[in-house]
Amino acid sequence: MFPIVFFLLCRVRGLTDAPRGQSRGQLVSLRTTPTPAGPVAPRRTARLTPLPSPAARLARGSFLGAWQELNADATIGHCVDNLETSGVLANFRRLVDGGPQGAFQGFWFADSDLYKTLEAVGWEIGRSGTDRWAELLDDVAGLLERVQEPDGYLNTYVQGTPGEQRFARPDYTHELYCAGHLVQAAVALHRGSGDERFLAVARRIADLIVREFGDDARALIDGHPEVETALIELYRETGDEAYLHAAELQIERRGYGLLGPGHFGAVYFQDHAPVREATEAAGHSVRQLYLAAGVTDLYLENGDESLLVAQEKLWESAFGTKMYVIGGHGSRHRDEAYGDPYELPPDRAYAETCASIAALQWCWRLLLATGKPRYAEEMERALVNAIAASTSETGTAFFYSNPLQLRTGHDGTSEDAPSERLPWYRCACCPPNLARLLASVHAYAATGDDTGLQLHLITAGEFSAAGLTAKVETGYPYDGDVLIVTRGTGELSVRVPSWATDATAEVTGGKILAEATPGGYLRVACTGETTVRIALPMTPRLVRADERVDAVRGCVAVLRGPVVYCVEQADLPDGVLVEQLRLDPAAAVTEEGTRLRLSGFARKDDPDLYPAHEPAPAAGDESITFTAIPYHSWANRGPGAMRVWLPLA
Amino acid sequence: MFPIVFFLLCRVRGLTDAPRGQSRGQLVSLRTTPTPAGPVAPRRTARLTPLPSPAARLARGSFLGAWQELNADATIGHCVDNLETSGVLANFRRLVDGGPQGAFQGFWFADSDLYKTLEAVGWEIGRSGTDRWAELLDDVAGLLERVQEPDGYLNTYVQGTPGEQRFARPDYTHELYCAGHLVQAAVALHRGSGDERFLAVARRIADLIVREFGDDARALIDGHPEVETALIELYRETGDEAYLHAAELQIERRGYGLLGPGHFGAVYFQDHAPVREATEAAGHSVRQLYLAAGVTDLYLENGDESLLVAQEKLWESAFGTKMYVIGGHGSRHRDEAYGDPYELPPDRAYAETCASIAALQWCWRLLLATGKPRYAEEMERALVNAIAASTSETGTAFFYSNPLQLRTGHDGTSEDAPSERLPWYRCACCPPNLARLLASVHAYAATGDDTGLQLHLITAGEFSAAGLTAKVETGYPYDGDVLIVTRGTGELSVRVPSWATDATAEVTGGKILAEATPGGYLRVACTGETTVRIALPMTPRLVRADERVDAVRGCVAVLRGPVVYCVEQADLPDGVLVEQLRLDPAAAVTEEGTRLRLSGFARKDDPDLYPAHEPAPAAGDESITFTAIPYHSWANRGPGAMRVWLPLA
Repeated sequence: MFPIVFFLLCRVRGLTDAPRGQSRGQLVSLRTTPTPAGPVAPRRTARLTPLPSPAARLARGSFLGAWQELNADATIGHCVDNLETSGVLANFRRLVDGGPQGAFQGFWFADSDLYKTLEAVGWEIGRSGTDRWAELLDDVAGLLERVQEPDGYLNTYVQGTPGEQRFARPDYTHELYCAGHLVQAAVALHRGSGDERFLAVARRIADLIVREFGDDARALIDGHPEVETALIELYRETGDEAYLHAAELQIERRGYGLLGPGHFGAVYFQDHAPVREATEAAGHSVRQLYLAAGVTDLYLENGDESLLVAQEKLWESAFGTKMYVIGGHGSRHRDEAYGDPYELPPDRAYAETCASIAALQWCWRLLLATGKPRYAEEMERALVNAIAASTSETGTAFFYSNPLQLRTGHDGTSEDAPSERLPWYRCACCPPNLARLLASVHAYAATGDDTGLQLHLITAGEFSAAGLTAKVETGYPYDGDVLIVTRGTGELSVRVPSWATDATAEVTGGKILAEATPGGYLRVACTGETTVRIALPMTPRLVRADERVDAVRGCVAVLRGPVVYCVEQADLPDGVLVEQLRLDPAAAVTEEGTRLRLSGFARKDDPDLYPAHEPAPAAGDESITFTAIPYHSWANRGPGAMRVWLPLA
Repeated sequence: MFPIVFFLLCRVRGLTDAPRGQSRGQLVSLRTTPTPAGPVAPRRTARLTPLPSPAARLARGSFLGAWQELNADATIGHCVDNLETSGVLANFRRLVDGGPQGAFQGFWFADSDLYKTLEAVGWEIGRSGTDRWAELLDDVAGLLERVQEPDGYLNTYVQGTPGEQRFARPDYTHELYCAGHLVQAAVALHRGSGDERFLAVARRIADLIVREFGDDARALIDGHPEVETALIELYRETGDEAYLHAAELQIERRGYGLLGPGHFGAVYFQDHAPVREATEAAGHSVRQLYLAAGVTDLYLENGDESLLVAQEKLWESAFGTKMYVIGGHGSRHRDEAYGDPYELPPDRAYAETCASIAALQWCWRLLLATGKPRYAEEMERALVNAIAASTSETGTAFFYSNPLQLRTGHDGTSEDAPSERLPWYRCACCPPNLARLLASVHAYAATGDDTGLQLHLITAGEFSAAGLTAKVETGYPYDGDVLIVTRGTGELSVRVPSWATDATAEVTGGKILAEATPGGYLRVACTGETTVRIALPMTPRLVRADERVDAVRGCVAVLRGPVVYCVEQADLPDGVLVEQLRLDPAAAVTEEGTRLRLSGFARKDDPDLYPAHEPAPAAGDESITFTAIPYHSWANRGPGAMRVWLPLA
């Protein structure tokens, strides 16, 4: 015990002298953030400021805008329906009206499916003003109030399972994780519609956390980080510093083995090293990335530079040695975890959808903290590839894991590696996570600061900050022509992707302050109506992996702009299997709409599993041309083999 | 229910009209096999016959012989010690002398650790006549008799865990699996020393299985196959056909979903398709391979060709598309399972030690059934590579998983992928499995038939069959010179490995009937004293994988004879990492004892994770020479990076 106690004493001395929640337990809103805000509304040290929801609008026909509409029209409702069919709402109902009837259904963290769906509804109301879920909200608000215990505790698994005790197995039960999602839902609903009902429920459980796990109370942390960002958002929404401090304790107590080894060891839930020392991305990838988002949120509020230094190192480990080219994170199925550096098998990529969402959320916080374009670029990579791929064209079927290769003969019977998107999962964390992200995705496109407006995600839409309004027209990510017309006076910054080595910009009515450098921001001083025309080079390009990524040696991925391509069996001539393709890197790549036409060879199969190495290449390969499609659109034509990384001829 | 009932009726009609155990429940030994026999003593349809234990002797200084001595001197005793420290024996003791004291320790199948260790002791007594474990056997025999319930039931997990019911969760509890290992131990002890005590215990539980899961009784199968081979061995040892029939029911009932989906789906425990239809190696690899051994055993006794046809197809799937070059099986950590065809990542190879042992046991049965040399060749591959690697030079530390690559920066804290061999495991299936295999490994080297003697594993030693005795002298697998002197009259067959394309044979005093064809048998008619000198080409050779094995594209493995080599960080100059090595395939490979000296380049690290593909090779690689060691001897010098598959320059 000694080392842990010693640490806690030290850390308390180093805290930010936060005044202790004078409003704790009161239902007074202290919100001072702009109304209605989107996700992440820092109060203090951000370099850049998120735009309030009405100040960021995606064009309906844009890539992101159309997806957001699909989310509103199909995905959110699909999630709501599945809350019924999967038993999530039944888990709440069985706890009222006379005690448990029927068994608890689903995983022990199933409450979070409801909360993430509510969060999606909250953002969607804030964005579109829809009232189509008003009845659901009324029902659920009443249900939560009745299920919540007088002291604020709320978790239908623990409350409804004989033998389970509150906070008895924090490595396992996800109680703070679920509480965190409840809090985030309440914040979204409050920001989106001013709904105080969920915020009241959320504050009661947050107050319980403040009381039970405060400075002089039990040093409990949760096996699944999530409550950290949630409590900080609740602090932002209410102004009650007790929540910020509770989040700080969660973060500062992590890494000292409080959770025990669990099934997969302390590294699984990032309890192996304190956050300032844990600079290699490790363990369960979603836990790692949610924790990182929380730590970065803490930096945004308390300005502790040592946190930011550690987070940027951690980011380099995750994004520089352990990330898939589609923006996926976590290669291991066994424990949904990051592997060793460069351990990035395409066929067994786990690349959980939730991990890419969490990565985006973390990058967003780092972008706000530092203004560095690399964070925005990685948000874009994840969004248009891994995250986009995880939803079907109908918006009602989803990938949980996102492989970069599906083999001929793949056994898709296991839910962790299906051959097609599934309408729902036993562990249904991903679909409502997508819903909440997409309902708020407009808020991740742009920021403001004292001098003007910054466009981070290149998308058609309208964005305003600091008196400057920009209307963006573009078919990006498929088209590299970007037309921006601004009104007002101020500085416009537009991110130029690092691959855009020949980008050009033409400005009328304003003045270029910084040229369109790849991996930087084009900066323009705008006055009156200023027109900015940017041409991003959209020539398809071949990318290889660091040679330490053994699993894709001798292969290239084809990208066009930020979009990663893949080859599907459905596009190959009869008798040629995906496994037989060899790309000729010297041959021209031609464009056919959003598809690409590639050239190469179909290789004959090997006769033996381990033949003798022969210096001369095998003869008899057949020349063919074949089609590649955007990775995000794969698996919409039935099951079949697919690969992103193409072996070179 | 209809389809299952229908099937069972059909199958029963197809059974072999086996007389129903007239001796069932009686403790009369009906053994008619030679005494003392080794593992697998077919009564009926075998093409080849195993040698009784005294007729097969390994030379003490040979590769296999020295390992067998190490097993006797170190490994078996180490296993016995760990039965105490891991609580396995305590699980038995707590059930006598007044009921459970203390908690059940370890996994629910921990009983099998004891049984496999007892089996090792049984074979070791049969081989060497040792009495060093006499006291242990006395103690354990008494303990088993007291723990066993009057009707024969025996399973310390179920007996000692409140709430567990007999055979209530056959997908999970491993009750027949443990019973199978008990039976196999009893057979080994009976064959090795004539010990009737364990056989009596084993027959009581086997009789319970016969009664409770017979034709007209409950159609129960176990989630983990193992009891099939065990019951057939018990039939062979006792002559009681009821055991053969019980095994047949276990096999014929499999594949109809009786086990339910479990956690990983029916394919995990091979309950997705009947054994004649399940011709793709799938699911948990040890379960798959134990089941296959059982099915082949059944063929050996009932001669049902449809079983053999299916098993040979299954073998082609496993060994032709899913096997590691070291003879490892099962690439997936998540469920210890076979992956899709050609899904063979070297870094995340699971390649469980038990799977290679099971694969060897299956190959042995197929060899006996068919006489085909390919089965013996794969036994050798597994033995001298994956299985040999799994034991430390001290004989007291073990690998459970056997990766073909360990990365720089590997996190070895997880028991499923440690950086070094561990002295024991929470799931300790592998160490006692090694012990039982090594104590009987001499029995896998040779067979007899009516005409003479067949040598399948090339090793120094003495072997006799059909009046022919062969003394073999060789330093194989490191030396290709094999000197065989026979006495007596008969046909000697010596397996010539398929890689031995320039093998030569010189015979004095006998007559060559078939030349030394690679992948065949040299056959010699011997009379009086015959001398056979075989020279196998031991030039190191480079092997690649089928191109569908994406994970090792552009790489070769270095083999010499049957021995796979690897490069360890410990042998590289300062500043060069294993990941940087590139092999020059045109450069000469020189031999330094059992080590090899290779030439190539040290490649500079890449600057980015996903750089642009450039047609010209990177400049600045540094020429180096480096050492490769036999894979089976890796990780004996502390933890460090290693790889079998070497990228080509």
